[in-house]
Amino acid sequence: MVYQHGGNVWIADGGGELAPGKVFDFSANINPLGPPPAVLGLLRKKAGYVRFYPEPHALTLRAACAEKLGVSPGQVIAGNGASELISLFFWAARPRRVLIPAPAYSDYARAARAAGSRVDFFPPREGFAYPLELLAREVLRSRCDALVFCNPNNPTGVFWDDVTPLIEAAAEKGIPFLLDASFFPFTGLDWLNWQEKNFFPLFWGSGAGSKGFHLFVVISLTKIFALPGLRLGIGIGPPALIERLAAAQDPWSVNVFAQLAGLACLDEKDYVTKAVALVEKEREYLRRGLQKIAGLRVFPSRANFLLAEGRLAGVSGAELVAALAKRGLLIRDAGNFKGLDEFYFRLAVRRRAENRRLLKALKEVFMEKRG
Amino acid sequence: MVYQHGGNVWIADGGGELAPGKVFDFSANINPLGPPPAVLGLLRKKAGYVRFYPEPHALTLRAACAEKLGVSPGQVIAGNGASELISLFFWAARPRRVLIPAPAYSDYARAARAAGSRVDFFPPREGFAYPLELLAREVLRSRCDALVFCNPNNPTGVFWDDVTPLIEAAAEKGIPFLLDASFFPFTGLDWLNWQEKNFFPLFWGSGAGSKGFHLFVVISLTKIFALPGLRLGIGIGPPALIERLAAAQDPWSVNVFAQLAGLACLDEKDYVTKAVALVEKEREYLRRGLQKIAGLRVFPSRANFLLAEGRLAGVSGAELVAALAKRGLLIRDAGNFKGLDEFYFRLAVRRRAENRRLLKALKEVFMEKRG
Repeated sequence: MVYQHGGNVWIADGGGELAPGKVFDFSANINPLGPPPAVLGLLRKKAGYVRFYPEPHALTLRAACAEKLGVSPGQVIAGNGASELISLFFWAARPRRVLIPAPAYSDYARAARAAGSRVDFFPPREGFAYPLELLAREVLRSRCDALVFCNPNNPTGVFWDDVTPLIEAAAEKGIPFLLDASFFPFTGLDWLNWQEKNFFPLFWGSGAGSKGFHLFVVISLTKIFALPGLRLGIGIGPPALIERLAAAQDPWSVNVFAQLAGLACLDEKDYVTKAVALVEKEREYLRRGLQKIAGLRVFPSRANFLLAEGRLAGVSGAELVAALAKRGLLIRDAGNFKGLDEFYFRLAVRRRAENRRLLKALKEVFMEKRG
Repeated sequence: MVYQHGGNVWIADGGGELAPGKVFDFSANINPLGPPPAVLGLLRKKAGYVRFYPEPHALTLRAACAEKLGVSPGQVIAGNGASELISLFFWAARPRRVLIPAPAYSDYARAARAAGSRVDFFPPREGFAYPLELLAREVLRSRCDALVFCNPNNPTGVFWDDVTPLIEAAAEKGIPFLLDASFFPFTGLDWLNWQEKNFFPLFWGSGAGSKGFHLFVVISLTKIFALPGLRLGIGIGPPALIERLAAAQDPWSVNVFAQLAGLACLDEKDYVTKAVALVEKEREYLRRGLQKIAGLRVFPSRANFLLAEGRLAGVSGAELVAALAKRGLLIRDAGNFKGLDEFYFRLAVRRRAENRRLLKALKEVFMEKRG
């Protein structure tokens, strides 16, 4: 049970007390604007609701999401973070062999194995962007009975505009397909209006014969609304799958405040627009700055983070983590992502002053290394 | 996916908004004092922590609980409510056949079946209190490979002071034993000082040969500290089992506020003492009042609720729920507990004015029924 993710601000300044450290956290990929002020106000105002059990099965929140998304309430489930929905997918689908393209968020493999599945990885490709037809062919050829795909990819930030080849391959094979779109809201496409943007055509409408019958899409609200402390994820899928997942779920797994916050966030369209604009601008600023650092390679991203590599300078992720921690900056060593090695690290996009501070610190460390 | 529990105040006054109804809730078994004021203050003050991921695996909280309980940190796990720990137990232990004494909290069977287990029930006994040797013999005789026991029992309130016969039977058979002690803090025994009270001797210390090696005890903090909206449960067991459960658990399943509240609650000893004294007094008041209602039978309880039966008057739980709802009172129809029938209902113990109101309403309904 070794913790291998970002965002652990508690250790940095910890001790016995539970207080966040005074660090700039580039290791967790959270909206740099923070939570919407209205949501923060709501939490303070409704603290007394702690004495009530959450609405069982989060029915009001699920119905509200379904309405915004233009699907039926029976096609939406809410989770204690996207993490719970990913675990439920494996517990309920019980695949024998899961195919996961590398690199990918490491918790897929952990959750799959905890549910008794074997995990096969699709090996990483140079530059990490590849035609999805490649992966679709692999799905058809392989003996996997479940597929996981993360889009935009974590940790690379690569985004595919059209995942139809994968949906068709899963449909042809008749296997469940977990599409983790946790960072989708940062792409600039409207996460509540998929149909118009033609990213996720609504495959689920037409029963077992439809191509999307096995498709389960997960979106984290934790990241775009900066609510990781509360945990909230939404899953969309065919009614039969959603019913199975809900039957395996504790009735109160989504706490009162996550439900309240989720409902409030559905009205925060302008906030999302503002956050996306900021992320686009700052991602470009950060990318250009990183490109200027000799020996550092940075990869193009459509998400709110950038994957980088220190191989040419001989700078490892672990080394960087240690050097930046001394400067009060937390970054994510990406060496434990399957398919990556010790020279990779991931940087969240934050506000200008913080990004500038990060660039300055990185420059120093790379300079020192070169002597 | 039918909801069969108490505490759903959201439907009562619902609509599309998520607001609790103006009801007196006797259907959920929550500390009638409400949450400790210090915890409420903390939630308001620390609302901004929503922007941080929870400490992964709740290590600080687990270590603090372990210290208070006098066990090692590796013997404690925290959960998103006791519910998550119950589910994890079944997911991780994967029993083929689970033995559950009836009546019992219905979520054991749901969680067991969701994990693929078959459920056998030990049939209820008249009066619901029986020598544990009876059940222990049944365990040894049966083909079950897991045992669940709830003490104090939900929904009957029966409490057994010494569960050694069950621990020994499970040890002899070598099967995992889930002991749900969610209402234990209401018995008046100190939940943080088991050893002294000799209720849960600390069986876990001495490795695979010890009798308690298969024992997993779950305690809900949701009920005694009135935090059901946040979700928090603690599990104690042998290190090998705890490690398996933790590996199957999402690293952030316990949200930031549940962790903060849990740490604060460990210092609320006086609050628990006060709550227990209130519950004892009010339970006796309620029990005496119920006994005076012709046609109503009430069972002795050591928990913060009372099981009652309307059979003699021909009053069903469903009928009562409907009649009391009109008077703004929510109670729990207990007819869906395995081993009970439509004539049972469960009443939480609350403060005097509310209990008086409940007694008055019950009297009216039973009188009307008799014509």
